[in-house]
Amino acid sequence: MNTQTIIQALQAVREQKPLVVNLTNYVVMNNTANALLAIGASPIMAHSREEMTEMMSFAGALVINIGTLDNVWTPRMAFAVKQANLNNKPVVLDPVGCGASRLRTETSRQIAKAANKLIVRGNASEIIALAGEKGQNKGVDALDSSEAAVDAARYLVGEYQCCVVISGEVDFVVTNEGLVQLRNGHAMMPYVTGMGCTLSALTGAFAAVGEETGLAAAAILGVVGEIAAEQSKGPGSLQLNLLDALYQFDEETLVQRLKLV
Amino acid sequence: MNTQTIIQALQAVREQKPLVVNLTNYVVMNNTANALLAIGASPIMAHSREEMTEMMSFAGALVINIGTLDNVWTPRMAFAVKQANLNNKPVVLDPVGCGASRLRTETSRQIAKAANKLIVRGNASEIIALAGEKGQNKGVDALDSSEAAVDAARYLVGEYQCCVVISGEVDFVVTNEGLVQLRNGHAMMPYVTGMGCTLSALTGAFAAVGEETGLAAAAILGVVGEIAAEQSKGPGSLQLNLLDALYQFDEETLVQRLKLV
Amino acid sequence: MNTQTIIQALQAVREQKPLVVNLTNYVVMNNTANALLAIGASPIMAHSREEMTEMMSFAGALVINIGTLDNVWTPRMAFAVKQANLNNKPVVLDPVGCGASRLRTETSRQIAKAANKLIVRGNASEIIALAGEKGQNKGVDALDSSEAAVDAARYLVGEYQCCVVISGEVDFVVTNEGLVQLRNGHAMMPYVTGMGCTLSALTGAFAAVGEETGLAAAAILGVVGEIAAEQSKGPGSLQLNLLDALYQFDEETLVQRLKLV
Repeated sequence: MNTQTIIQALQAVREQKPLVVNLTNYVVMNNTANALLAIGASPIMAHSREEMTEMMSFAGALVINIGTLDNVWTPRMAFAVKQANLNNKPVVLDPVGCGASRLRTETSRQIAKAANKLIVRGNASEIIALAGEKGQNKGVDALDSSEAAVDAARYLVGEYQCCVVISGEVDFVVTNEGLVQLRNGHAMMPYVTGMGCTLSALTGAFAAVGEETGLAAAAILGVVGEIAAEQSKGPGSLQLNLLDALYQFDEETLVQRLKLV
Repeated sequence: MNTQTIIQALQAVREQKPLVVNLTNYVVMNNTANALLAIGASPIMAHSREEMTEMMSFAGALVINIGTLDNVWTPRMAFAVKQANLNNKPVVLDPVGCGASRLRTETSRQIAKAANKLIVRGNASEIIALAGEKGQNKGVDALDSSEAAVDAARYLVGEYQCCVVISGEVDFVVTNEGLVQLRNGHAMMPYVTGMGCTLSALTGAFAAVGEETGLAAAAILGVVGEIAAEQSKGPGSLQLNLLDALYQFDEETLVQRLKLV
Repeated sequence: MNTQTIIQALQAVREQKPLVVNLTNYVVMNNTANALLAIGASPIMAHSREEMTEMMSFAGALVINIGTLDNVWTPRMAFAVKQANLNNKPVVLDPVGCGASRLRTETSRQIAKAANKLIVRGNASEIIALAGEKGQNKGVDALDSSEAAVDAARYLVGEYQCCVVISGEVDFVVTNEGLVQLRNGHAMMPYVTGMGCTLSALTGAFAAVGEETGLAAAAILGVVGEIAAEQSKGPGSLQLNLLDALYQFDEETLVQRLKLV
């Protein structure tokens, strides 16, 4: 059933070619635009307040990624979220480095609080930091960081009425309706910068066509990353093969490869 | 005759290695610098007012691309155009997203108005938006967007004493002397972000050695994109193969492939 | 003996995975992050004053690259250097375009003066410009730019108590203890934008584990670039193959290839 949902979401992206507005970090702007194009969406990297009202009126979703944030960009991000809300558009938050500095933790929380239709995509430590103390049900007794991250994600789901995607060796999609695990991917993927940012951008494309859990993007990127890594002798090749595999991705590949628990 | 002109322009770029100053968007800075290097030019990505006077005194051309513009960058762009004018250097304007927001439309027009030696490179909708109502000779009766874009380009040529390159499935080069069509390229090219921006950057390299119509860059990128796409299974490969093909490009390839009408 | 030092430094980077904070130019942020990942380090591209105190408290090194500097970024760079000093962390300065504008020359000198534990990595003309008149022992009589650059580097070593890496056809590592020459590399490397910036970033990774001369990074990138270029038909392939070769790099490759004089 879930496989079918993912396939339908992919078809919708390829047919509707939704415009995804990205306020993202300088490091990954090129990659994430290319990943959005390869899956069939229409990326725009725009951040100016002077045009954000117009942009969000015809965009399908907003992706906010704080990877290279500063005090010039944070007000732009806040303003973009407000415009997304006014247009009832989903917001994907990528809280890059949340927990590594107070600035990142606080900015992430402000964006999470402000967005009405929210999906959060981060790694375990970012999700744990975003939830903070209130998200630590088991505190230091959690068996591993995955367990602690799922606890934190559950807290975030309740606190912000959002969905949460935790990416890692196993990806977790945490929603009001429960927990899904994805066991695709490859150990070489973390050697390409911004792989998580790519997932957040793709999540925006699927959110724009109504897929609000983050599952479709995580499933597809996991499968595609796995295929690309198998073809690659290193992270340089992986980055290229990933875009090719996204472009060629089809239903059969998903059905053959998907490890959804 | 036109083929010979293109070949001479290519030789001039490779011999003179002109310095091309780019105020461009964050998404394509890496690609466009690499494309300029691959064709034999010397790119510099610089935007600071504190050094633009010096930069334009020894640069061969200025490329202004508004892809990620904001109110910090627009005065920098205006200042750079002024320095280009003072040094009698050509300016290539890439009005990315012109028409998608008032900010982009107005900024594009201000730059077009300000530049003394101007080449505009955009897609059909950007060129139509840049020209505005006055450029719509046939209004909604135009048979297709290409025809409307050529009308708009003709208006721009008269209004700004410029040359206009409209890129798309067919590329059009519109000058005071008429219209040239280029039928190279490949359907996979729009799946790589910033392919048009690459064309604008290359146009700057050729303008720096005196090729003021934009034809040489459009012809070469069309041929090179076609070759690269034939070698590629997706847009990841295409981006790489395009740089390799630019680097290897020679007269024989141009003569064999060029579809110039 | 030097080969063994390089191998130990590589092992240390792969084991310790040092965090390298980069305030670098927009053009190369993606490449340099990927190069740092491929060698085994942990890159972070961060520039905000609001988090730099925290960042430098747990980072291993700071890389400052002025490639796209402006008056918003220069105070951020100065502040980051101060934080590096407070934490006794090494600073790698890449004075991109030093000499091409007063802004670049003066900013480079201010950073060089401010940093307590400094490595400078530039090409011959940048090193000569950074040293200025005082670094011109032989003035216009220098036999070639390499000789003038080594003179300039020697001046910088004395003036700033730093190490200097001059990259070019032959790389020179100039320290208090003398001069080392590296004769690896390939003529195709300058056709990829930011190859020098990649060297500066890698220098930061090695500095973070105590390799303060810059030799290890220059040796490894020279060898890896040579291997990658031999596999490549142009600069597009080279960029990709370089990351793969960095990822696969091992002791045997170094021993076989290194041309250290």
